[in-house]
Amino acid sequence: MEDRYRNVYYTPLTPLSFLKRSAHVYRKETAVVYNDKRYTFQQFYERVNRSANALHTIGIEKGDKVSFISPNIPPLLEAHFGVPLSGGVLVPINIRLNPGEMAYIIDNSDSKVLFVDTAFRDNIEQIKDKIPKIKEIITINDTTECEGLEYEEFLKMGSKKEVEIPVKDEYETITINYTSGTTGFPKGCMYHHRGAYLNSLAEIIEMSLNQYSSYLWTVPMFHCNGWCFTWAAPAAGAKSVCLRKIDPAKILELIESENITHMGGAPTVWIMLTNYAQKMGIKKFSHKIIITVAGAPPPPSLLRVLEKMGAEVRQVYGLTETYGPHTICEWHSSWNKLSFEERAKRKSWQGVPYINAEVRIVDEEMNDIPEDGKTRGEIVMRGNNVIKGYYKKPEKTEEAFRNGVFHSGDIAIVHENGYIEVMDREKDIIISGGENIASVEVEKTIYEHPDVLEVCVVPTPDEKWGEVPKAFIIAKSGTHLSEKDIISFCRERMAHFKCPKRVEFVKELPKTSTGKIQKYILREREFAGREKRVS
Amino acid sequence: MEDRYRNVYYTPLTPLSFLKRSAHVYRKETAVVYNDKRYTFQQFYERVNRSANALHTIGIEKGDKVSFISPNIPPLLEAHFGVPLSGGVLVPINIRLNPGEMAYIIDNSDSKVLFVDTAFRDNIEQIKDKIPKIKEIITINDTTECEGLEYEEFLKMGSKKEVEIPVKDEYETITINYTSGTTGFPKGCMYHHRGAYLNSLAEIIEMSLNQYSSYLWTVPMFHCNGWCFTWAAPAAGAKSVCLRKIDPAKILELIESENITHMGGAPTVWIMLTNYAQKMGIKKFSHKIIITVAGAPPPPSLLRVLEKMGAEVRQVYGLTETYGPHTICEWHSSWNKLSFEERAKRKSWQGVPYINAEVRIVDEEMNDIPEDGKTRGEIVMRGNNVIKGYYKKPEKTEEAFRNGVFHSGDIAIVHENGYIEVMDREKDIIISGGENIASVEVEKTIYEHPDVLEVCVVPTPDEKWGEVPKAFIIAKSGTHLSEKDIISFCRERMAHFKCPKRVEFVKELPKTSTGKIQKYILREREFAGREKRVS
Repeated sequence: MEDRYRNVYYTPLTPLSFLKRSAHVYRKETAVVYNDKRYTFQQFYERVNRSANALHTIGIEKGDKVSFISPNIPPLLEAHFGVPLSGGVLVPINIRLNPGEMAYIIDNSDSKVLFVDTAFRDNIEQIKDKIPKIKEIITINDTTECEGLEYEEFLKMGSKKEVEIPVKDEYETITINYTSGTTGFPKGCMYHHRGAYLNSLAEIIEMSLNQYSSYLWTVPMFHCNGWCFTWAAPAAGAKSVCLRKIDPAKILELIESENITHMGGAPTVWIMLTNYAQKMGIKKFSHKIIITVAGAPPPPSLLRVLEKMGAEVRQVYGLTETYGPHTICEWHSSWNKLSFEERAKRKSWQGVPYINAEVRIVDEEMNDIPEDGKTRGEIVMRGNNVIKGYYKKPEKTEEAFRNGVFHSGDIAIVHENGYIEVMDREKDIIISGGENIASVEVEKTIYEHPDVLEVCVVPTPDEKWGEVPKAFIIAKSGTHLSEKDIISFCRERMAHFKCPKRVEFVKELPKTSTGKIQKYILREREFAGREKRVS
Repeated sequence: MEDRYRNVYYTPLTPLSFLKRSAHVYRKETAVVYNDKRYTFQQFYERVNRSANALHTIGIEKGDKVSFISPNIPPLLEAHFGVPLSGGVLVPINIRLNPGEMAYIIDNSDSKVLFVDTAFRDNIEQIKDKIPKIKEIITINDTTECEGLEYEEFLKMGSKKEVEIPVKDEYETITINYTSGTTGFPKGCMYHHRGAYLNSLAEIIEMSLNQYSSYLWTVPMFHCNGWCFTWAAPAAGAKSVCLRKIDPAKILELIESENITHMGGAPTVWIMLTNYAQKMGIKKFSHKIIITVAGAPPPPSLLRVLEKMGAEVRQVYGLTETYGPHTICEWHSSWNKLSFEERAKRKSWQGVPYINAEVRIVDEEMNDIPEDGKTRGEIVMRGNNVIKGYYKKPEKTEEAFRNGVFHSGDIAIVHENGYIEVMDREKDIIISGGENIASVEVEKTIYEHPDVLEVCVVPTPDEKWGEVPKAFIIAKSGTHLSEKDIISFCRERMAHFKCPKRVEFVKELPKTSTGKIQKYILREREFAGREKRVS
């Protein structure tokens, strides 16, 4: 009998249903703000439908990939609904990557159409011959203009007729988000509609979003689809305030003019913002703001300032493979009585699973580690908030999904109240300003320099970025390498943020008896005197 | 590839996962309060696991039904987790039904075990021979004691060992909730784990529940599992404050002593409460309370008092077939500027679908009716918040699920902003104090009286109950029937709340040319001068 009435009691879970509903419920309320542009939910929905219809006219069919190179401006937000509504799969690309890296993702994802903000148009010119699968390039004229089919013209090609949600199976792919990974080759995390839907509901719950909320786009939409807020904010009926780049003056202005209630980002963003606010004599926001912090735990000094300014910090932890945030330091009202120091300590914990997540901290035999605040274990996840695999990389999926769980590679302890604290990032990953950098990738680039004998890249603490890459190099004898040489060499070959900020020339590197470099020794030396690596 | 890693990225959606998580996250915080009893989430979870293990010891296996006759006290809340955790299916029974009605449900649901609060133990004695499938009866000694296996003793039979969630398919039945229906025979609405999970998340979102919330149990848990709050409140980490019966003095006391933030119920409950508060000179709650109103729209006079007392009213509408609330009058911040009268008018609308619901208002050809505030249509639903069918009543399921939607039978108009307003309840249903009464069932009973020739039961407005049943009767000639005769006759055969409160003897009943009684004419006469029937 169940199957007979499936059409009545089953709807595939998809975030596309959220915008359809919000366009009905909040039709005349503001959905999107960007500079002098303001779209109501009805207008936003109309643009999304035009986008889906226009994608059909240029040949996008079910399952086709559509790449986007864009900062946090309306077209990318629209793409999160428009592309899947057309039946396509969205591939949002990190705008800080270099042209070669962008080419790899565009080609590896089999994208047929590419949308690119004109600020990045030159990058594409350089790689035109490396992306032969692209049939159409649409440019987004925001800060500058250029030739070719422009986004607003493209929208006009599509009718505003409501497109029927094309999802039949909730496990269909909705987006592919590339992570830098440890091998240096980006891996495409396949998000499905069900996961995106459930994670959006979880973000609404964990971040207390509702129709009175005003969400400022400080988190890049190309990072885990803006931690799923691309779908969650419109779902809640919240206003999305777009932001082309992180600019403290602009953020402070928008907080007041758009009555911002929610924003998110790495501690570095908030250090920058509060420093600027102090410089300008701004002591308090005019209203309460919920700030989601991820990437690294917020230092006590920052927490103190934010608290004084009227912000509530909610710390989260997750990975691209878990649709972004996956654990949260859920607060207890009974903790409000604690001293500031004790509260700050707890706020730095990554906490507990999201309401719909499953997390374990395990030893090498996959046993749960004790809740003793000492023993270290690996953070592993499973369930509806885990990707369905890496696109076209079955061996990487197999490796990450061994033992029936997703292996984060991150190391944590579990406190006596069950709350986790991340002690080490994935061994070989450097987290700089919220961006993941694979040290192996940096090493590989440096190894290409003819004068380098051996290299090892580890994170080193940095006041502004949290961590930056530092290279330990053994130069070939008879050569005259300088720090500047290495940095310039890297900058020509990689995104700048991935390049080492410091270089130390050494005579030897610590090694195991079998000759493997003991990276952790160098890492620990860099972080000597600190309680844990991430700071 | 998807199937290969299903064990990593798929978890069946089930509300059982919520308590498992909350017992971990909020372990030492208060989960349940009842008189002088207080259970932490850890204790609550331990009792639930004992319950599941004990059910195994008395022979409950996957899919077995377990009936509960209990007011809103901890055992029934525990049963919402314990029974499904054992693999069983919970059948919560309306304690206001008469023994015969209870027997029908116990037998029809194929229940093997029955839990009964001692206050209702006598009812069970009367029907012992009508419930042969029951193998074990467990009594809950709350206000009185009696012989037999007692609930606390029963719990001790089970170990506190954590039971693994036994759900393999999220469409497995979690509870069967009986609705009175129109035929007079209760229909068992089969709720599945997926629907219960999604509806719980929706309640958390729509009612702004979180770990700081304190939920007062004014809604019967046997009504749509307390509108899914039995799962939603523990999921959010909220405190559940149990309440054996609606008692204004007790409610006011608990609001202050337990810092109640949320409660729900029909307008009659709030009329009773505010009247009592005014009598006692209580003008304001010490803190904000969110009151969910359902069953009938709140009259402006009530809204005015509640607003003054510091309550925020959120009106919802739904049916047992939709896991309870399914639409909500989502508020817009821009509406706060409206006059009180205009706001009160909007508050009386049933509004828009829940964040995860699908609702349409259609004409007889299944076309959407215009948003003109005039045209009437039937409210139909589909999607994840609709039951999977009526237990062992395929023909009733077929009828309700025709055209690929669930037919509510309720009539609404759609305002120009897309918000719906319910104009008529299901033609034959009388809503009295939040309880559904099938007029057909009352008629059937009255027809059993030897002196009755013809009868028609319709709702009539009542200050206390909103509506009460009124019987129009044509007596057989030569008989001497009185109003009192009819009421006593009914009281011997039905739950008292279902019995007509008024009886009018008439010479004829309005009929169509084909001889069908035109019930709507009598109904409209009773509600003459009112803008709409539900008041």
